[in-house]
Amino acid sequence: MDATKGSTMALTLGIVGGGQLARMMIAPAVELGVQVRVLAEEPGMSAAIAATATGDYRDLETVRAFAEGVDVVTFDHEHVPQEVLRALVADGVRVHPGPDALQFAQDKLAMRARLAELGMPQPEWAAVTDAGQLQAFLDDHGGRVVVKTPRGGYDGKGVRVVADPSEVADWFDGGALLAEELVDFSRELAQQVARRPSGDLVAYPVVETVQRGGVCAEVIAPAPRGGSRLAEVAAGIGTAIAEGLGVTGMLAVELFETTDERLLVNELAMRPHNSGHWGQDGAVTGQFEQHVRAVLDLPLGDPQPRQPWAVMVNILGGPAHDTLESRFPAALEAHPAVKLHTYGKAPRPGRKVGHVNAVGDDLDTVVYEARAAAAFFAD
Amino acid sequence: MDATKGSTMALTLGIVGGGQLARMMIAPAVELGVQVRVLAEEPGMSAAIAATATGDYRDLETVRAFAEGVDVVTFDHEHVPQEVLRALVADGVRVHPGPDALQFAQDKLAMRARLAELGMPQPEWAAVTDAGQLQAFLDDHGGRVVVKTPRGGYDGKGVRVVADPSEVADWFDGGALLAEELVDFSRELAQQVARRPSGDLVAYPVVETVQRGGVCAEVIAPAPRGGSRLAEVAAGIGTAIAEGLGVTGMLAVELFETTDERLLVNELAMRPHNSGHWGQDGAVTGQFEQHVRAVLDLPLGDPQPRQPWAVMVNILGGPAHDTLESRFPAALEAHPAVKLHTYGKAPRPGRKVGHVNAVGDDLDTVVYEARAAAAFFAD
Repeated sequence: MDATKGSTMALTLGIVGGGQLARMMIAPAVELGVQVRVLAEEPGMSAAIAATATGDYRDLETVRAFAEGVDVVTFDHEHVPQEVLRALVADGVRVHPGPDALQFAQDKLAMRARLAELGMPQPEWAAVTDAGQLQAFLDDHGGRVVVKTPRGGYDGKGVRVVADPSEVADWFDGGALLAEELVDFSRELAQQVARRPSGDLVAYPVVETVQRGGVCAEVIAPAPRGGSRLAEVAAGIGTAIAEGLGVTGMLAVELFETTDERLLVNELAMRPHNSGHWGQDGAVTGQFEQHVRAVLDLPLGDPQPRQPWAVMVNILGGPAHDTLESRFPAALEAHPAVKLHTYGKAPRPGRKVGHVNAVGDDLDTVVYEARAAAAFFAD
Repeated sequence: MDATKGSTMALTLGIVGGGQLARMMIAPAVELGVQVRVLAEEPGMSAAIAATATGDYRDLETVRAFAEGVDVVTFDHEHVPQEVLRALVADGVRVHPGPDALQFAQDKLAMRARLAELGMPQPEWAAVTDAGQLQAFLDDHGGRVVVKTPRGGYDGKGVRVVADPSEVADWFDGGALLAEELVDFSRELAQQVARRPSGDLVAYPVVETVQRGGVCAEVIAPAPRGGSRLAEVAAGIGTAIAEGLGVTGMLAVELFETTDERLLVNELAMRPHNSGHWGQDGAVTGQFEQHVRAVLDLPLGDPQPRQPWAVMVNILGGPAHDTLESRFPAALEAHPAVKLHTYGKAPRPGRKVGHVNAVGDDLDTVVYEARAAAAFFAD
């Protein structure tokens, strides 16, 4: 082994997409000793410090050139087309999660069908290709249902609650839509699982997520008032889906807890997810470090909480007429134990531009700390 | 304020020096939303991901060009010459720590004289300019003393224990040497303090440091068997020195605990320090985040431990015939709760190439975890 004597052989991770999820992989990767390269959509994005290329992730030759010289390709988002992913795999590139798994995060109809095969608990659903089929589904489900475009939706986009097929007339362009019953839920939860290509898997504690306007606003980890049975059931669902779909890296399963205490699968994400940001400061191994480990097929870290409670509050929008940085002095002065994470994005209404994490022994105190610190960044 | 609407105004920190201390400022800076630029000595150093310039930190024009466009200049080491520092200050650059403070970390004779003025507890010492003066100091201090070159020493370099002036004949080149009594100490401790230009200051818990061959091998935080009185005295010394010398950023005070239970100041460092690496995973605010906050004059974070014990073990040298990365699978598999930090440096005997942190409630377990994980990287 004299050839390697005195040398470094850093593992190199290529991330397609330059958003905040890529950005937040950088810190743990640097500490672990993993080199990060990012293919960013444009200059100046959140992950700019690690951007080694700029280009269109839908263009095979762009992605193929980026993939040269990295050990593994992973993603900031789920929008890289299947044909690009499959061409990379055919080239011999290690892609995690791979196209066979990612298709179920890219296409909600495919996801529903596959979860049904796996026997996962879901809302009642149907593929509807015209107004007549949607009307029939409406008639069978109380006259109000959820309609989703199978592709391209996120943060509430591509989702409508409708009482009449005319409300999605603009979406009927030939492809099928996903119709789902309007679930009577008491709250929303999220279950994260990390899985290596070798099959090893760890489950995070199930968390409660609070959405506002279809966007995640707040996360409490672990989910209060759940008890060990809720945690077991949620972890079981996450594990079954990760294994059944062959997910590698982080998987987030968004869940409805119904008023009659069932858990139903709402959405899947195959990447680090807003519901897991708490773990940067609240878990022994946060989701960003875990994703880096998992996709490189390194042993997974301990997913357990460091303290009894962690609360994450998103900074949505930010100050309308000022910069985030202008609020640092007051926010940090008032909350010396809160951890602030910002994304290098300009404030814009509704945009996720950062978050704060608070941890501690008393839930009420932790919730207060996180909300109060985040409030410094609102107008 | 419409000019800033929708814009980012990231704070930009310039770090002179591309070593592991600069590297470890990157992760918390990225998360906080502070842009980091590094003036590295050469390509491929530990902080390469943030290196925006390569050049000689002793050359004024190189450093001056680097300082343009950053909000504050700080350091990975204390070796930037006074004349360069003072020229930057004259240019209007915010330099932290500034030259007036840094001179006491650069010149051990100046440090001893100033600490004497401040009434700090120190070993007995003298400036000796020839063999005769050193012989007189030897005669007064039991025939064996420590001799140090005032400048340029670190990690045991520039330090000799001597019984005869001939043993440092090669160091008598005209300048004075520092002679110190050989302290009868039971253990070594380190006290860290962070101080803002505005004067605000926080003290970390005093820690125990274990040296091997003049190099830090292990740190236990907080120092065991100390009690609150030790913590108070140590924090008082750190605070008095930070204020007395006008330090900005992180200050580390290396201390001897004597066999008769006095604390004596050994060395000073005005930057993040090996004795504070435990805080990356063991403190609410680690020293690297704290240094970034302090030099930018942002409010300081909570320096308290997250858990009762944290232990840091250095990876010294690394595998002689292999890479650090080759040991990741076994080390991470065996120790899923230990946090591994590597520096992107090639293994070489005695070189600091990384460290591991373990935290928990039981000191014996935490010590075992950290040592056992680090041992995977020895040969």
